[in-house]
Amino acid sequence: MNIAVAQSGGPTCAINASLAGVLRAGQKSGEIDKIYGVMNGIEGILNNRLVDLSQIISDEEKYQLLLRTPSAVLGSCRKKLPDYHDNNEIYEKITESLRNAGIGIFFYIGGNDSMDTVAKYAAYLREKSIDDIRIIGIPKTIDNDLCVTDHCPGFGSAAKYVCTTVQEIARDSNVYSMPSVTIIEAMGRHAGWLAASAACIRANGEQAPQLIYLPEAVFSSEKFIADVKGKMKEHKAVIAVVSEGVKTADGKFAAEEYQSGQKDVFGHAYLAGIGKFLEKLVSEKIGCKVRSIELNVMQRCSSHIASAEDIDSSAAIGEAALEAALSGKSGCMMTFIRESDKPYSYSIGTTDAAAAANSEKLFPSEWINDEGNDVLPAAYDYFMPLIQGEVYPVMKNGMPVHIVI
Amino acid sequence: MNIAVAQSGGPTCAINASLAGVLRAGQKSGEIDKIYGVMNGIEGILNNRLVDLSQIISDEEKYQLLLRTPSAVLGSCRKKLPDYHDNNEIYEKITESLRNAGIGIFFYIGGNDSMDTVAKYAAYLREKSIDDIRIIGIPKTIDNDLCVTDHCPGFGSAAKYVCTTVQEIARDSNVYSMPSVTIIEAMGRHAGWLAASAACIRANGEQAPQLIYLPEAVFSSEKFIADVKGKMKEHKAVIAVVSEGVKTADGKFAAEEYQSGQKDVFGHAYLAGIGKFLEKLVSEKIGCKVRSIELNVMQRCSSHIASAEDIDSSAAIGEAALEAALSGKSGCMMTFIRESDKPYSYSIGTTDAAAAANSEKLFPSEWINDEGNDVLPAAYDYFMPLIQGEVYPVMKNGMPVHIVI
Repeated sequence: MNIAVAQSGGPTCAINASLAGVLRAGQKSGEIDKIYGVMNGIEGILNNRLVDLSQIISDEEKYQLLLRTPSAVLGSCRKKLPDYHDNNEIYEKITESLRNAGIGIFFYIGGNDSMDTVAKYAAYLREKSIDDIRIIGIPKTIDNDLCVTDHCPGFGSAAKYVCTTVQEIARDSNVYSMPSVTIIEAMGRHAGWLAASAACIRANGEQAPQLIYLPEAVFSSEKFIADVKGKMKEHKAVIAVVSEGVKTADGKFAAEEYQSGQKDVFGHAYLAGIGKFLEKLVSEKIGCKVRSIELNVMQRCSSHIASAEDIDSSAAIGEAALEAALSGKSGCMMTFIRESDKPYSYSIGTTDAAAAANSEKLFPSEWINDEGNDVLPAAYDYFMPLIQGEVYPVMKNGMPVHIVI
Repeated sequence: MNIAVAQSGGPTCAINASLAGVLRAGQKSGEIDKIYGVMNGIEGILNNRLVDLSQIISDEEKYQLLLRTPSAVLGSCRKKLPDYHDNNEIYEKITESLRNAGIGIFFYIGGNDSMDTVAKYAAYLREKSIDDIRIIGIPKTIDNDLCVTDHCPGFGSAAKYVCTTVQEIARDSNVYSMPSVTIIEAMGRHAGWLAASAACIRANGEQAPQLIYLPEAVFSSEKFIADVKGKMKEHKAVIAVVSEGVKTADGKFAAEEYQSGQKDVFGHAYLAGIGKFLEKLVSEKIGCKVRSIELNVMQRCSSHIASAEDIDSSAAIGEAALEAALSGKSGCMMTFIRESDKPYSYSIGTTDAAAAANSEKLFPSEWINDEGNDVLPAAYDYFMPLIQGEVYPVMKNGMPVHIVI
């Protein structure tokens, strides 16, 4: 039996580690012949764009580079499957392509939308009583917003980047004697996990960030300015970390007037600009030195400061995915189950992919302060294990080496 | 005799390494009693804000943290001295403060404007025949635009950050099958060294960046769009690295309409927005997927990916500064003199601070292609030695440890 792995959705630092995990488990199992990489997600199945992973990742050196390469070496896609009751042509095409290549298990590494694909295709397979093909979802998202799983592969590295960078920006913003405000915009459309993770730097004695705003708490420009003014009484340099998706009381994105209005194929609005919006607001309402910083794609591609815990566990969940499939599972998403915070321990389980698809796990309201402008220390125990350890790049000419397929 | 060190201008990853170098040389010399750190540059002299560095950096562990801490642990300032012929009150005050603290040598670590301060105070000392005080300038700037010296402490680390990050963004931008344009905005008001350094990633086999725009070449929005369209024929994902300070044929900043119009105390216009400006332009004129990324202060504070060559040589130039002062020099700026590219070797010299102040070393036109949209391989030999080696942070709880004074 051959197997195939595809990657989908937004890139992360750990999505290739999960690919590496499936590959390694497949090579070790003795039950697998070819291990295919599928280029550009589900699109690559439809177009028969398959590569032989064992030939490409042919030695330990390349395996180590794969673990350390950001983005998605197989490319990604944002294709959404139709309901198969409306249109099953694409489902038949996928099945035919998989069978033609002798593929018995298909692994799809991705976020919410990818789990929607896993759930839909699994439902199709069940309805058609197709039992020679299994599909398994492997979670991935820096947003950390997939349900059921304790956390998502890729999040730990993104959080470690955010913590490291916010701490360095805190140094930078404190050099001048004049008062200043720095607004740091973190990714997170509906879930504020990544912005919230910046609070961890206080465990190292930092006072920053003085303010944290998440999509899970109601945002108000007036309150924001009042909050900043309040913090400026105690701190020369005030740092506010703000999720891109903070929303006003009417549920609209606070940066709406700064948005392009365009939507992606899943109907998500493109977001940009809460940082610039608030920078302008502080300049107008307070008039002090102000700067906004958008952490941008560096949050999801800065492999040079990846979390070892994230990379290791992302490979482990890939390995476990093969075991789950070989034990007969299909239509499920792999999950992390936290056993203990201190010392940190976890196990790997599965859940129905439909339970994870098309819904978002929000940052818990009990970890947000009453004012809605900070994260409570109770959240640190959740975050801290996920950012531990480093997996520094292999360097050549003073720059990282990546693997490109 | 006591000595004092102050830091000025914009922060870098290496400005504390130069401070560490002066400190270590002072402790070793046997000729120095107290080694003072002056808080917030020349302002700290006027306000007698001195700290005893030997007490604060009291062991090897703290010394190592000092080398790895970004920004400026002593704080900075942007104070400009008046011409002493117009107003010598402040010069008298500085002299009195230094004498009161028994300070015979004053080290000023900074950029163009700081060298202006060194030159002016040295001229005052000469004119007044004051020979119990010496002043030495130690260069520092991520812009790499100081004259006479081969390169500036802090630049190598900033360039290493730019190369690493542009390479990671190149991975990220290539995951989708649809055509895309990514615009990366690098710091550099008048000199494009930092944007130019991104070309080094081609030494590791990258095709990106496909386009590089510097303030040293005339920028035109029309040409930019034509360039991007041309590169899109060959590349799915086009990456353009653009200096914040690119200028049109009339000498105006290309992003002028996106600027605030404000100026800092030295009369420099605040720059922001060439990236956003070009993003909007591509969206309007080409209509493809487009994203702009401002590397922002991360260029100057990302110590976690600092260049070992930069940190080591920045400490060495600090040590050499003390030797120069003890040999009787004053009013000079320390310089790097490149002896050889391959293998890289350099020596440390001095130049009159006035020769470095108030002028900028631009990126050489012979290293820019005829079209004015790329950097020629001849520049790589200059850049490459400066980004070699890593000085990874000391980590605690998965995050870097910094020293704070």
